[in-house]
This record gives sequence, C-alpha cells and structure tokens, in this order.
Amino acid sequence: MVVVMQKGVSQEQINKVQKHLEAEGYSVHLSQGAKRTIMGVIGEPGKVDPQLLASLPGVEKVVPIMQPFKLASRDFKHQNTVIQVGSQTIGDGHVTLIAGPCAIEGRENFLKAALAVKDAGAEMLRGGAFKPRTSPYSFQGLGEKGLQIMAEARELTGLPLVTEVMDQKSIAMVAEYVDIIQVGARNMQNFFLLRELGQVNKPILLKRGMSATIEEWLMAAEYILGSGNPNVILCERGIRTFETYTRNTLDLSAVPLLKQLTHLPVIVDPSHGTGKRELVEPMSLAAAACGADGLMIEVHPNPSQAWSDGPQSLIPADFARLSKKVRQLESLAAPEAEDESRERS
Amino acid sequence: MVVVMQKGVSQEQINKVQKHLEAEGYSVHLSQGAKRTIMGVIGEPGKVDPQLLASLPGVEKVVPIMQPFKLASRDFKHQNTVIQVGSQTIGDGHVTLIAGPCAIEGRENFLKAALAVKDAGAEMLRGGAFKPRTSPYSFQGLGEKGLQIMAEARELTGLPLVTEVMDQKSIAMVAEYVDIIQVGARNMQNFFLLRELGQVNKPILLKRGMSATIEEWLMAAEYILGSGNPNVILCERGIRTFETYTRNTLDLSAVPLLKQLTHLPVIVDPSHGTGKRELVEPMSLAAAACGADGLMIEVHPNPSQAWSDGPQSLIPADFARLSKKVRQLESLAAPEAEDESRERS
Amino acid sequence: MVVVMQKGVSQEQINKVQKHLEAEGYSVHLSQGAKRTIMGVIGEPGKVDPQLLASLPGVEKVVPIMQPFKLASRDFKHQNTVIQVGSQTIGDGHVTLIAGPCAIEGRENFLKAALAVKDAGAEMLRGGAFKPRTSPYSFQGLGEKGLQIMAEARELTGLPLVTEVMDQKSIAMVAEYVDIIQVGARNMQNFFLLRELGQVNKPILLKRGMSATIEEWLMAAEYILGSGNPNVILCERGIRTFETYTRNTLDLSAVPLLKQLTHLPVIVDPSHGTGKRELVEPMSLAAAACGADGLMIEVHPNPSQAWSDGPQSLIPADFARLSKKVRQLESLAAPEAEDESRERS
Amino acid sequence: MVVVMQKGVSQEQINKVQKHLEAEGYSVHLSQGAKRTIMGVIGEPGKVDPQLLASLPGVEKVVPIMQPFKLASRDFKHQNTVIQVGSQTIGDGHVTLIAGPCAIEGRENFLKAALAVKDAGAEMLRGGAFKPRTSPYSFQGLGEKGLQIMAEARELTGLPLVTEVMDQKSIAMVAEYVDIIQVGARNMQNFFLLRELGQVNKPILLKRGMSATIEEWLMAAEYILGSGNPNVILCERGIRTFETYTRNTLDLSAVPLLKQLTHLPVIVDPSHGTGKRELVEPMSLAAAACGADGLMIEVHPNPSQAWSDGPQSLIPADFARLSKKVRQLESLAAPEAEDESRERS
Repeated sequence: MVVVMQKGVSQEQINKVQKHLEAEGYSVHLSQGAKRTIMGVIGEPGKVDPQLLASLPGVEKVVPIMQPFKLASRDFKHQNTVIQVGSQTIGDGHVTLIAGPCAIEGRENFLKAALAVKDAGAEMLRGGAFKPRTSPYSFQGLGEKGLQIMAEARELTGLPLVTEVMDQKSIAMVAEYVDIIQVGARNMQNFFLLRELGQVNKPILLKRGMSATIEEWLMAAEYILGSGNPNVILCERGIRTFETYTRNTLDLSAVPLLKQLTHLPVIVDPSHGTGKRELVEPMSLAAAACGADGLMIEVHPNPSQAWSDGPQSLIPADFARLSKKVRQLESLAAPEAEDESRERS
Repeated sequence: MVVVMQKGVSQEQINKVQKHLEAEGYSVHLSQGAKRTIMGVIGEPGKVDPQLLASLPGVEKVVPIMQPFKLASRDFKHQNTVIQVGSQTIGDGHVTLIAGPCAIEGRENFLKAALAVKDAGAEMLRGGAFKPRTSPYSFQGLGEKGLQIMAEARELTGLPLVTEVMDQKSIAMVAEYVDIIQVGARNMQNFFLLRELGQVNKPILLKRGMSATIEEWLMAAEYILGSGNPNVILCERGIRTFETYTRNTLDLSAVPLLKQLTHLPVIVDPSHGTGKRELVEPMSLAAAACGADGLMIEVHPNPSQAWSDGPQSLIPADFARLSKKVRQLESLAAPEAEDESRERS
Repeated sequence: MVVVMQKGVSQEQINKVQKHLEAEGYSVHLSQGAKRTIMGVIGEPGKVDPQLLASLPGVEKVVPIMQPFKLASRDFKHQNTVIQVGSQTIGDGHVTLIAGPCAIEGRENFLKAALAVKDAGAEMLRGGAFKPRTSPYSFQGLGEKGLQIMAEARELTGLPLVTEVMDQKSIAMVAEYVDIIQVGARNMQNFFLLRELGQVNKPILLKRGMSATIEEWLMAAEYILGSGNPNVILCERGIRTFETYTRNTLDLSAVPLLKQLTHLPVIVDPSHGTGKRELVEPMSLAAAACGADGLMIEVHPNPSQAWSDGPQSLIPADFARLSKKVRQLESLAAPEAEDESRERS
Repeated sequence: MVVVMQKGVSQEQINKVQKHLEAEGYSVHLSQGAKRTIMGVIGEPGKVDPQLLASLPGVEKVVPIMQPFKLASRDFKHQNTVIQVGSQTIGDGHVTLIAGPCAIEGRENFLKAALAVKDAGAEMLRGGAFKPRTSPYSFQGLGEKGLQIMAEARELTGLPLVTEVMDQKSIAMVAEYVDIIQVGARNMQNFFLLRELGQVNKPILLKRGMSATIEEWLMAAEYILGSGNPNVILCERGIRTFETYTRNTLDLSAVPLLKQLTHLPVIVDPSHGTGKRELVEPMSLAAAACGADGLMIEVHPNPSQAWSDGPQSLIPADFARLSKKVRQLESLAAPEAEDESRERS
C-alpha cells in the first residue's frame, strides 16, 4: 500500500498516520520530496481499510499495491482448481461444453432438448427454473417443477445439471436437485447469497456482474471461498459498454488475465455475452483459443417457440458443428499445454 | 412496437409473424418497401416478449416504442407521489435532507452524530446496520444491535430513520425498527428482495444500480409497486464510467428526466456519487437546482475515526453550511414551481 | 511515482531499476517487504516515461502520484484565468451565456437568431460554419460564407463570436473572423491541431472528448498552453456511457473538480450534453449551481426548420427564461463567493 | 425509418410530418393506435436528417431502421474486399501478420527489428514516425527521418510498410514513403483528414476510436470510401470501459459482426488493445479464431530500452511462437472456410 500525503502536510500529520499504521503492525517507509511525501506501507493487506486511511487528515490518496483477494489468488494456491461433477470435470485443460435452453418451459420440450444437446456434444445440461427478468410482467420460470424436470433429464442423459439460484430461500431446494449452482450477473454482489452458497456442498458458477471489474468479481468469489466452499467457477458473460450492436461486450481478455490471477476455472457464455445467434460460434472458438475452461451455450430445439430464449439461441445442429470445431481447436492446443504451464510456473 | 423484417423475407414469413401478433390482440400495419418490410404493431405492451418476437424466422429486430414500465409512469399517475414519514415528507416540492454516518459503530458515537446532523438541518437520519462491503474482510456492520441504536437516536431527535436491507431474511427485522428501507445499488436487480419489499408497509428508497439504465431502474421500482407497495423513492448515486477521478459519475440529468417519466420522488446521494468530500456541496446544490426532491449525505462528527466512512464524509459544520445554501436555493425556485408544473401538465 | 516490483524479483533487477531512476535525477526510497518491494520515486515528473519504466525487467507496475499536467494546474498558477473577449469576460465569477444556432444556414436566419439571443440575454454568439457530421451524407456547413455572416452578426449585435475549427488548414481563416475558436469533442486529441492553435492569438474553447478522462482533457489543454496560448476555456459536453435516454451523460462533477485542479475557466454545454430540449434548463441551472463559469446553449428561432439543430434547440423565449433564472441563482451565490475562494486558497 | 409521434399529437401535426416526408419522396404508412401514432417511412435513407425530423412539432422520436453506411456495407458490395500491398494481401482468408516496434528510435535499431520480425513470421512492417502522445512532454517521433529509415527497412526485408499519419499536412509525405497509411484511434472522426485520405492512392488502415460504436466506425470508413479510396482496412484496438486491469477492452465480437456488416477486411491490434505483454498471444489466437483478417503486433528486440514501447511489446522469439500458433489455427479453419462463405451468402 502507498499513502500519498497532501501538499503542505504538517510533520505532525505525517507522524500521526505513520504511528497509526505501525500500531496495526505495518512497517512504513517514508519518502519525503520537496513537493510531496509518500509512504510505502508493507504488511498484510486487509487489516487497515484503505478508505479509512484516505480520510485521515493530511492524506491525499491511498494506492493499494497488493491484490485484495487471497483465497482466490494464484499466490494462495498455485495449481489449477479442477472441479469434478459426476463423471465430468471443469478446469482440467479441456473445454467443458454446457448447453441447454434458457428457461424450462415444459417436461417434454426439455427432455427433448436435453437429448438433443447431449447428442450434439454437451457434457453438462443447463436450464432455468427461476428466471431473472428485468420486467415483472415477463415469464418468471417454473420453480420447483422446473427442477424436477431437470432431474428427470439427468436420469435420461446422465448429464450433470447447472441452474441459477436467485434468492437465499431457494438455495436448499436448488442444491437438492442440481449439480452446479449458478449465481447470475445481477446477484454477483448479493453478499448474503454468496455467503450462504459458501456453506453449500455444490460447486458455484459465478457470473461476472454487468459492470463488475475483474477485482470485484474475484472478491465476490472470495466471499464464497471464505465461507467454506472451495469450488467456484468464474463465468465471463459480457460487460456493459456504450456499444449497442451487441447486447453486452464480451470481455475475452478477462480469460487469460484470470488464468494468471487465480487458480479457479474460467468459462465463457457467448450466448448472453453477445445476444446474437450468429456470433455464438465465432466467439466460442475465440474463447477456446484464448484458454477458456468451458463454454455455456443456449441451445433450443425450436428457439422461435421458446418462452424466454432470445435471438441468441442455437439449434442443436449449429451446436453440434460448434462442438466439433471446439474439439479440433483443442487438439491443436494440446501439445502446447505443457509449455504453457511451464511458463507460468 | 415496430418489427423490422430481414431483407429477402418471404411473404409467408411475414404472414406468420402478422398472424402471431394479431392472435395476441395486436393490430398490425404493414409498410412494404422495395428493400425492407416493417410492421407497426399497436396494442398493449407486455403481452408479447420482444425477445421472443425477435427470434421468429424472418424477423431482423424489434424496436420497442412504448415504455415498459406502467405503474411507475406519469401516464399511470399524473400527480407527484408525496411520501409522508412521521412528520417529514419527500416529494412535496422541497428538498428533504437525509444525513448521518455511513455505518453505525457504537451507541455513543451514533447518538452524538444524530444530534449533530439534526442541529445542522437534517430532516431524516441515515445509518448502516448492515454494510455491503466488496471485501469479505471489511467491517460488515453491527446488525440488529445497530438497528436498536438507530431507534434510540430517533427517540432522542425525532428524526425518521433510513437504513439499508441486504437480504430477504432481515426484512422483517429492519422494517420493525426503521421508517424507510433502502435497497442498495448492488441489489437493485435482486428481484426476490424487491418483490418481498413490495409487501412491506414502509417506503422503499431504491438506489440506482451501478450500471443500470434509467429504464431498468424504473422496472426495478415496478417490481416493488406491482407487489403492492406504492411508496418508492428513487435515489441517483452515480453510475460507473471510465472516469477515475471521481468514484462514480453522478448522472444529474437523470433527475429532470425521471421527473418527466415518473411520479415517484427522486433524490440524490452526492457522497457516494462522487466519493470526494469537496464535491459534496457543489453537487448537492446542482442536484437541488435541477429538481431533486431530496439529498442523502454522509455526515460524521469525526470522519477520520470512522470504521467505514470514507473520504466523502462531511463534518457537521460543513453540512450545516450546505443545508443553509440548499434552503436559499429552494427559496429562489419556489415562485417558479407553479410555472413548472403548468408546463409539465 | 511509485514502482511496484514483481514477486520474486532479484536484487540485481531492483538495483538496475534504482540506478536507472537515479541516473535521471530522481531520488529513490526502497520499501522491501517479505512479499513485495516497492520504490517511492521523488523528483520532477515527466522525465521518465512510466510506460517505459513499466517494461523494465522485474517491474510489475508503475503508479503515478503527481498530476502529469503542469501549465494547466493550480500549482503552476493559483489565480483563476480570466479571459477578456471584446467587452465580455469568461472566468470572472459570473456565468457567461453563449448562445446561438448549431449551424449557420443563411444570412437572414442567422442575423435574426443573433438579435433574438442577444435580446434574451446572450453575452456571446455561437454558430457553426463547419459542421462535424458523423455521416458524410449530412450538411457540412457553409464554410467561409458562414464566417462572413457571423462577422456581420457581430457588427449588428456587438456580441463576440464562437465557432469551431475542424482542421489545420482553416485555422487562419477562422481566426480572422471570430473571437473564440472552438475545438470539438472529436478533435480533442488531434494534437497537431492543438499545437497550431497554441500559436494563435485567440482564446480556445476546448470541448471534452466523448470518452476523455479529466486528466487527458487537461493534457490536451497543456498542448495548447505549452505552444504559447494561455487562454484556454474548458467545456464539459457530456461523456459516453451505457445510458441511452440522454445522448451523452453530462458529467457535472467535472466542474467543481476542475476548479480545484486548474486555473482555467470551465463552461458547460447542456444542449449537446443531454440532446433533449426539456433538460437544457434544469441542467443549466445545475451547472451554474456547481460553479460553471459559463453555459453554451443551442438557440434557434425556429428549431424545426433548422438544417442541423436537433431536438435539443431552445427557442429564444425559453432561453430568455433560462437566462433570468441563471441570473437569480448567481445573485444568490454572490455573497458566498468570497468564502469559497478563501477555502480554496 | 420509424417516426413515433407524441401522445396527444394533433391530426394537423401528423399531416404536416407526413407531407414533409412525402415531399422528400418517401412513402409513409400510418399506424394509429388508441394511445400512440407511429409512421413507417420507406425510401432511401440519408435524404432526411433524423435529428431534424425529431425536432418537428409532435414528433417524439425517430428510430432509424436501415444502416446509415452504404459503400461500406455488404449490401453495396457482397464480395470481400481483398487488398494487395506489394506481394502481400489482406482480406484473402489468411491472417496477415503485421509487426514492428511502436516508435522508430534510430536507424540501426529499426533495421535490426525489421529483420527480426521478418524472420519471426511478419508479412508487413509497422513503425511510428509520428507518435500521438497524450502528453506534450513525451517523445513525439522522428518525423520524415523516421520514414526514410522505414523505407530502408523495406529495401532490406521486402516487407510492405504501415505507419500512422496524424495531420493533413503530412499526408503527401507519408504516402510517398509507406504502403499502408494508418489513422489512429484519436483521429477516427477527424473528418477532414479522412476526406483527404480518400484521395490518396494507398490503402488506409482505420483504427476504431476509443469510444466509437461500430456504426460510427463504419461511417468514418464511409468518409474515405466516399472520397474515392476503396481500400480501407478496419482495425479493432480495444474500447474504453470501466475495467482497469487491461488498458482497453478488446472487443473481439466486433470482428464477426463486421464481417457480416461490411466487405472490408478487419484486423486486430492485441498489443494496444490489452496493454499487457502476456495477453498478446492468447488474444491474437482468439482474434484469429473468430475470423480476423490480420493482426498488428508490437515487437521490439529490446522492449525495455525502447522510447515509447510499453509493457505490451513482445520480443521477436515470443512473436515467432505466436506466428507459428496462428498458422496452425489457420490450417484448421481452412477446410471450413468454404462452408462459412456458403452460409453467409
């Protein structure tokens, strides 16, 4: 941490700040120039709140140096976290394909969709039982009935299930039915929800908030990890920018960046990230090429009859082609994978 | 709603979309040009999901024309919503001043702060019993003990209380102690929380999400209104942009814009909106000048000893000066107020 | 400047960076912790490029502490820059009102508009002879003929003229006719244009770029100041964000922030900043309330017949009412003005 | 184009707007609902300015339907534009590799760099003779001397040259020396510069503005195309967002989107787009995987001694590895290429 003092600060103010920091166990290195005094502060981050420090008299600003996340960092755990879900894995170096319709509309349709995505190459099945809708007047999901249908689809296909939980009260119910619990972008900083999910014995798929920085996202993961659940999967799904041709701006550079900063697996949702069917395949390939551990893709046998799937849903045939291309790309990367890990270490 | 068909769409596809819309009770007006067919769709919005429509074969895009919010709109209720809280009002044309420390740290400190802000001109008292902290390692608030201290401060000062609720489970407890329940920016699209707050008999102060559009914000209000609670106060607190000199970019144009779109009161939080103490007064005056119904301001008797107040906290003397200036500005606006309302109607 | 070294950096790398900095005349204070080494670097900023420093082996990042602008800073010149233009001033504590149509369409119309805005309270006259249009197919302005019409309007009204220059080749021509030369948002980082304007003997009105940080904006002013022209007026005109209800997001907190950082006058353009006629008056009042030195407002006697004025143009009667309100607000601020300057000093 | 009329609009106002549009040769289809009247307007876009239309009495808003760009659109020219530069091509289906140092610092260094990048797989050579620097106090480039050094490097290596032009006055000089003229992000809407480049007989590499929408970018290309130069290469280089871990947010979805909207080649600059050396390779592969026609990469034999290359510069060995991986990825895509083009047509 670096503390920058205001111009014209008094020696007394400098001493006070220094004593305050030393009392908390930090060591302080003063650099006094003609115009400005700065303090290098060495010690465990997290003990002094930078905001509090910034409001002490004479302090102009506080510049954090160390990353505020601990359990999520590569420093804390060097090896990649590999998450096992039934017979499937995420984070083991291959690209895990998760697919399915946005919302569950009915038993028959969903079972049909589940079989179709399995045939087309999906390794896990997604589906929404509760739908986070901007408008209270839109379809809100089938609730527990939807979860039961999902469980039946798992029986049928053997695919592990991913679904979103939207509130604390449904956590237990959702955890009973599915294999991976998703936290949506709008709940990324719902800290009470995160903390309760830290006590659940299922992996958590944590979507990036619409305007969350990478650091805030890792701090949200930290809430879950710190409450006892080590299995967090990060999912990039686009950030909000001024561009309107795409629904969001898919921030793919977050993928290799996160692979440096954290040991957690990172997957990409190109369906919501772009909002356009014809961009799903190219952006899936791009995500795989820059190191994503998985893809989560909206697939619906008949998108134009779906209740909440939008113009970004693929039909199973498109998804089958995408799967095939991803596997080819993977085979290419394989011989290099070892290299990569050597470089990183 | 306008439906734009793709180039080279077939007459059959056009007919199908038209029939689909007519079956839902809309009337459809076709405009067929040499290059493009567009459909003007007239009827009640909300019955057909624009996303679903956009995924029908032959459809290029759907352009909504009508605002998706209903209960929140000026069309639904022309007169301003005026909210009575104890002896105080919000939305009656004057600028309601809400002030207090960010977090409640202890009984004595808070009571002292409460008396100080009352003396300095505050009409309501704010304080945080639960703190939404980006880091799980930061102070998270005193919880119910904090609420009890707040209630004692109300006894002492007569000021109504505003505090944030962060999860469904605490709603009943918070509602028991305070007069206005705040929803923080991070929870603006926590739809389950919003729906439960719609069933509470206390006004809700709904902060704008960090990257929420004005429309999404009004849709969030719609969740509360639609669940039965007519008393929603909107609070602009800055949006996330690329600028880093200020913590957020305070979007003051949202104030006069909202006064056109909705009957709900609109207040401004210049403390979190800017993150800088020295910007709080000028931005408070600016907010009052462009029509804000209130201001929510962080005031702490001794900001540099506070646990979570940051570099944006005013001391009571600064707040007293700000109050005085706001009242002067108000007196100026008063004779024009009638004009304004005439124009709007 | 603070240099943060990578984890596991060698002592040799540390020495090398330290020597490099000392060779440039900086003094370096090392803070070596168990996990991390940081260097406080004291000396004249600008001599070492932070980017270059950041690419030295062993360096993780470089955190600038001092502001990179010099001539534009309050440190360099404490007193406000007051710009005299004919009988008018900008930056002397009152709110200078600049008004006129967006584009000059013809002699008669423009002279009529000039007289109308003068009557309604304008102190300077704006008009566009060259129009920066996103589309090459839109009206591009009358060029020199427009400048001649402007000059005639000055004869008629006595109002000083403001117009935009769009390329180096027209600088001499524009400077011959008008009193203040405007640089548009799209040219804010057209460094060759800025440098040539530094050699012109007319004040420069520098609009903020659509996505320019406050620091980049001040660096653009620095280009002009550094080339010899001390008279730069900064004009906030809205920044680009995700919000689409307004054309841009008017960043009013930039006004009090700039008044701290720089001695240059700061004005606001609420017409382009919001893109909506009904927001121009409230945002003008807000700008005046938070300390703007002037307002630049689009006024057209008959907006709906204008070639390039958009939905943000006021009619003269609206502008007259706005002027009156701004003057009232000013009278209120007057007795406090002295206070403010005392605090700032 | 769709014109949405205000609520409570009079029949007379509707007639006026309709007549105005019909007088310009448009055909107008009225859709009159109980609450709202909308007009479908069919005809050649560009004849009526949507902003003007939006300011007519009774009009609430105007929604453009057709894309405003013409010459740049796939409608205008279905086949990909393939640009031949010496023996090299851009846009022919392979990924063109452009590499070199950011700035030219001296003859020897640059010739060394040129040979190194050629050996490592570069097909074109980049280098900056004029540097657009945010600070007037930074190194501004060698000017014509730099161009002469570049020309010598072409002699030596046979690689065609790419360099940036920053002002109208240098166009002729730059065009004399180099093969492709680059327009930087800051000049993307310098319309006078664009128009003059439309008259130059060299391909123009047009970088996306920092906060330019895809539509504005294509309109900027339209300025060049419309002035007579059909050879424009679009270069995505990251947009400005709230994220600060990367210098910009590389918007890779722009690549497949542009391949749909326009026939112009699209390349990617992952060096400036991310600002981090370790992200250059993964983002290069991602760009290639989603269909980029080329990559422009900063490579410097000794980045830490460079005057203006930053922490994003690769050393030649890294670039060689990147080249190899791009070629492998290309070989994979090849058998599918035919498929792709069939789908698109």
